[in-house]
Amino acid sequence: MHRTSGEQDRVAERTGAFAPPPRLLLGPGPSMVHPRVLQAMASPLLGHLDPEFLRLMDEIQQRLRHVFKTTNPFTIALSGTGSAGMEAALVNLIEPGDAVIVGINGVFGSRMAAIVERCGGTLIRVEAPWGRIIEPEAIADALRSAGPVKAVAIVHAETSTGVEQPLAPIGSLCRDHDALFIVDAVTSLGGLPLEVDGWHIDACYSGTQKCLSCPPGLAPLTLNDRALAAIRSRTTPCQSWYLDLALIADYWAEGKRAYHHTAPISMLYALREALCLVEEEGLETRFARHRRHSAALLAGLAALGFTPFAQEGHRLPSLNAVALPPALEDAPLRTELLRQFGIDIGGGLGPLQGKIWRIGLMGESATRANVLTFLGALETLLFRRRWTGQPGQAAEAASRVYREQGLDEHSLV
Amino acid sequence: MHRTSGEQDRVAERTGAFAPPPRLLLGPGPSMVHPRVLQAMASPLLGHLDPEFLRLMDEIQQRLRHVFKTTNPFTIALSGTGSAGMEAALVNLIEPGDAVIVGINGVFGSRMAAIVERCGGTLIRVEAPWGRIIEPEAIADALRSAGPVKAVAIVHAETSTGVEQPLAPIGSLCRDHDALFIVDAVTSLGGLPLEVDGWHIDACYSGTQKCLSCPPGLAPLTLNDRALAAIRSRTTPCQSWYLDLALIADYWAEGKRAYHHTAPISMLYALREALCLVEEEGLETRFARHRRHSAALLAGLAALGFTPFAQEGHRLPSLNAVALPPALEDAPLRTELLRQFGIDIGGGLGPLQGKIWRIGLMGESATRANVLTFLGALETLLFRRRWTGQPGQAAEAASRVYREQGLDEHSLV
Repeated sequence: MHRTSGEQDRVAERTGAFAPPPRLLLGPGPSMVHPRVLQAMASPLLGHLDPEFLRLMDEIQQRLRHVFKTTNPFTIALSGTGSAGMEAALVNLIEPGDAVIVGINGVFGSRMAAIVERCGGTLIRVEAPWGRIIEPEAIADALRSAGPVKAVAIVHAETSTGVEQPLAPIGSLCRDHDALFIVDAVTSLGGLPLEVDGWHIDACYSGTQKCLSCPPGLAPLTLNDRALAAIRSRTTPCQSWYLDLALIADYWAEGKRAYHHTAPISMLYALREALCLVEEEGLETRFARHRRHSAALLAGLAALGFTPFAQEGHRLPSLNAVALPPALEDAPLRTELLRQFGIDIGGGLGPLQGKIWRIGLMGESATRANVLTFLGALETLLFRRRWTGQPGQAAEAASRVYREQGLDEHSLV
Repeated sequence: MHRTSGEQDRVAERTGAFAPPPRLLLGPGPSMVHPRVLQAMASPLLGHLDPEFLRLMDEIQQRLRHVFKTTNPFTIALSGTGSAGMEAALVNLIEPGDAVIVGINGVFGSRMAAIVERCGGTLIRVEAPWGRIIEPEAIADALRSAGPVKAVAIVHAETSTGVEQPLAPIGSLCRDHDALFIVDAVTSLGGLPLEVDGWHIDACYSGTQKCLSCPPGLAPLTLNDRALAAIRSRTTPCQSWYLDLALIADYWAEGKRAYHHTAPISMLYALREALCLVEEEGLETRFARHRRHSAALLAGLAALGFTPFAQEGHRLPSLNAVALPPALEDAPLRTELLRQFGIDIGGGLGPLQGKIWRIGLMGESATRANVLTFLGALETLLFRRRWTGQPGQAAEAASRVYREQGLDEHSLV
């Protein structure tokens, strides 16, 4: 092969294969990815209309229905990250002038509100302080006092605050008022109970890089017949062509498979494998695992003076938000955790910057070994700051929780 | 681990790891992917704000500038497939009421037109029969007769017809009329000459699964200062939040890195490796390789009675559209190619369904071994139909081209 001299210079800049440094991912996502999922992505590609690929799409749909707890035929993986799922749900269901109630108690509720406004929807904000749930009674009030409401949109697992939002009562309220119920399950799907059908959720989306422990790049999404009817009866075209769910439905529908865009094939390989792992473990077992490690982590952190940020009784097991003790500085500690231990955790967003940490225990990241490793690293750093008198006290507090729960002392998971 | 009995039943349905059947991908994309690129995706993940990941983003930007032939600082990989690139370019640059000229001579020009209408733009269609280029003179006429035009949008490589559109004269026209020049380079980037800066292209997007030979899932995109100024001076918010390039610019900008959404990390690993391979080969060498194998393929197909569909002198080397001889049936032949040989080629879209084939020789797919393998398989099928008297004639015609070009008889690539 011939190269021009300019190009030879460029080639010389190569530094060899990219080798990511070792990382323990305990932030708000991506979570750790199982080697089987990583390996799946290294499989050769299929054409996106190949019968074998279409069969894989069918399989993914079936497995997604299982984790969403739904029988909705329209249950797919959208070709974008979780934020694309949010945008798709809203821009397809909301038309200009539609009244939409949005629960806002963190970054992701605020983002929903911003998208509703970009759709020309009439936004009805129901707010709560960051760290607290949206009281179902507040949604009930808004539904009673507003005129006809097209939809209620709310975040199940607020990744910015660590709050788990109760959904079932809001689902019933939506049915009573004939409003669509749109739920953001980005940080809950596959990590804590979510009942799409049981809770009357009409549209629900998620991301792959949280409790499903798959790399980011797809947005699982499910719509029931009420949501689909709302889309089919739009009087204006959806403002997005790429995320137009009426067109995408024709691509995923068995028997139709109308070309819309080329699906991210390798990501779908990964998602299939991640969903297999979820089923092999079993949903209930997986939820219990998330709860167990969250409890141990919080016990360990409490021993060091960190306090849970989210409202008691509504704390996410998948994303543990804790307030830093006032004397501790956020940024230097997180930098040392990353540089010295390769441990990646999340800081606070917006008004919570510098005040809280967000420690993700999602999917593959939620293990005893990871909780104890993190607590040990943190204790080491705090000991150097003369913060903690006795290294091991956090790990001991966590271990006590594990013993109480009957977890084998030698269990890594 | 405990499982509920219902879940045990589900687990029993598992069929083991997904193993895609062997495929030679010679369709309109995805193209074959180099093992180094596949392996890159199997690397463990980094957090999307990890300093090492941000460094990787910088590297990808630099390598993308090289293939786009641009110095634009805003040169990124968007978190969606090529169609997301199209949508992003249009919804960010077009505001309601803006006059936009769109060249329409195939599926992808039609798609651009549809998106312009969803943005509320005033669409000015400049059409040509499918298979022919949009004459620059027709764009000149439209620019002269319309009032002020915000943008001219056109497809460089029409994947539905195999036409290569001349761009340089249109770029000059756009500057003369102070219109933005938006180019779809999905099936050209990395496979044939494209000069973003040299041809006065203001916004250009592509996909990864074509001539870059990377799996689908990202849309390389570049904007110059004129395009960015148009975005920064919008009077209405961009209708897409997910694809809002003003927000995305703040995520990719060195020093800012404002969180917008979680990037598809594994796909970026893949793109980095694919771009390394492009640089190692050298762009000119790569373009020549695409031309060489296209010429050989067309010679072989001519020997069997297939004729090029696209206008002479404007045929894409990366996507070879050929008209089927009238007596041959499209669907059964393509099915046999896939089932008996594992060879995936594309059929015609829309009005061309059943009439043409679209044979992609993009990136890793563009090799002598693949051309000869495809021709051999096709000859076998045609021989069974008593179509061809003498198996080997197509391969011989292709080999003649290789000999004329001085390619080693034993070269696989």
